[in-house]
Amino acid sequence: MKEITAIIRRDKLPETKRVLEELGYPSLTIQSVEGRGKQRGAMCAEMDSEMPDSFCTAVKLTPTPSAYALEHTLPKVALYVPKRMLTIVVPDDVVTKIVKSIIKANQTGKHGDGKIFVSPIEGAVRVRTGEKNGEAIA
Amino acid sequence: MKEITAIIRRDKLPETKRVLEELGYPSLTIQSVEGRGKQRGAMCAEMDSEMPDSFCTAVKLTPTPSAYALEHTLPKVALYVPKRMLTIVVPDDVVTKIVKSIIKANQTGKHGDGKIFVSPIEGAVRVRTGEKNGEAIA
Amino acid sequence: MKEITAIIRRDKLPETKRVLEELGYPSLTIQSVEGRGKQRGAMCAEMDSEMPDSFCTAVKLTPTPSAYALEHTLPKVALYVPKRMLTIVVPDDVVTKIVKSIIKANQTGKHGDGKIFVSPIEGAVRVRTGEKNGEAIA
Repeated sequence: MKEITAIIRRDKLPETKRVLEELGYPSLTIQSVEGRGKQRGAMCAEMDSEMPDSFCTAVKLTPTPSAYALEHTLPKVALYVPKRMLTIVVPDDVVTKIVKSIIKANQTGKHGDGKIFVSPIEGAVRVRTGEKNGEAIA
Repeated sequence: MKEITAIIRRDKLPETKRVLEELGYPSLTIQSVEGRGKQRGAMCAEMDSEMPDSFCTAVKLTPTPSAYALEHTLPKVALYVPKRMLTIVVPDDVVTKIVKSIIKANQTGKHGDGKIFVSPIEGAVRVRTGEKNGEAIA
Repeated sequence: MKEITAIIRRDKLPETKRVLEELGYPSLTIQSVEGRGKQRGAMCAEMDSEMPDSFCTAVKLTPTPSAYALEHTLPKVALYVPKRMLTIVVPDDVVTKIVKSIIKANQTGKHGDGKIFVSPIEGAVRVRTGEKNGEAIA
C-alpha cells in the first residue's frame, strides 16, 4: 500500500474528489494547510486558478508581477497560500493511474499547481470491522 | 519506530486520549480533518456515534437511509464528515497493542468508525534535549 | 527523498521559515495542530516561549507549577497545546543539516520545544510541470 498526498489549490478540490470517485477511490482525508513552493506564495496566480484581478489589487499585488516587482516590491516574508491537502491510501498497482489523474485535474500550468508525494504504508485497519491491509482500503 | 495515524469520530477523542495515556503513550498530535470512506459521508451514522435524530432531520437526512434513498435522494456530492486525526510515534514492539486499544475505544460497529494506518519513521529528535530516536519518543 | 516533519511552538514559526529559506529549502507545508509530549500540555511553558504570566494566571495556572500542583491541582485531562506542524520534502543528503537548523531555531530548553520526525518518501511530482522526484523538489 502507498499513501498519496496531494497539496492542491482550494478551488480544484471538487474536481479532484470527482475524479477519485470515478476511479473507484472515494476514501480520502482532507486538511486545510498553508504552503509555498520555490516561488513566493504572494503571487496571485498561486492562490486560486481563477483569482479575480480585484482581489489581487486589494492585497496590493499585481496579478503578474514583473521579476523586478518580485525581487524588490513584495514583502520579504512570503505569504503562505491556503491550500488543500488530500491523503488517500491505495494498493501499489494503482498509484501511477491515480497520480496521473490528480495531475490532469490540477494542472493549470501556472505556479501554485501543487505537489504530489508518495510514501509507504505498512499497515491499515478498518476500525468498524477490524479488516486489515488490502481489505481495509478496498 | 512506526507512526500510527488514526482517523476517528470527534466524540471518541477523549476516550482515545485516555486509553493512550493509560498505555503509557500520551504523546500525540491531533488534527481536524474531513474524511470519507467507501460509504457516503452524508449518512448521519458516520458523524458522531450518538448523533440525535433531530440533527439528522434538520439536515434533511433520515438516520438510516434506505439503499434507494442513498442512491437517488442524497446529494451526488457526498458530504465530507469532520473527523479527528491522531498521530503517535512509537517503538515497533508496541504497535499491535496500541492499534488494538485504539480499535477497542472506537469500534461502534457503525459506518464511520474510521481507519488506522501504520507507516515507517526513520528518525526522531526531541528538540529540547537533542535526544534521538528511541530516547526522543520514550 | 525524506519528509521532515517538525512540530514546533507557534511563535517559532517565523524564525523557522527564515532559517529554511536561508538554507535554500523554502518549500513547505504548514498545519495547525494540537499536541502534547510526555509532560502535561497544561504547563504554560509549553505554549509560547515568551508566555506572559498574566495569561497563565488568567487560565488559573501558575507559570511553574510545583510537582504537587501538577499531580493534584491541574485537570486530569491534560490541555493539548496549539502547535504548528511543518512538513518539508528534501534530498537525503541534506536531512541532517536541515534537522540541525530546525533544532537551533527552536531549542529554548523548556518543555514544549517540540519534536522532529524523518520518514521516507518514494515519489514526488510537481503538478505544474510533471517533473518528478529530485526535480520536483529542487
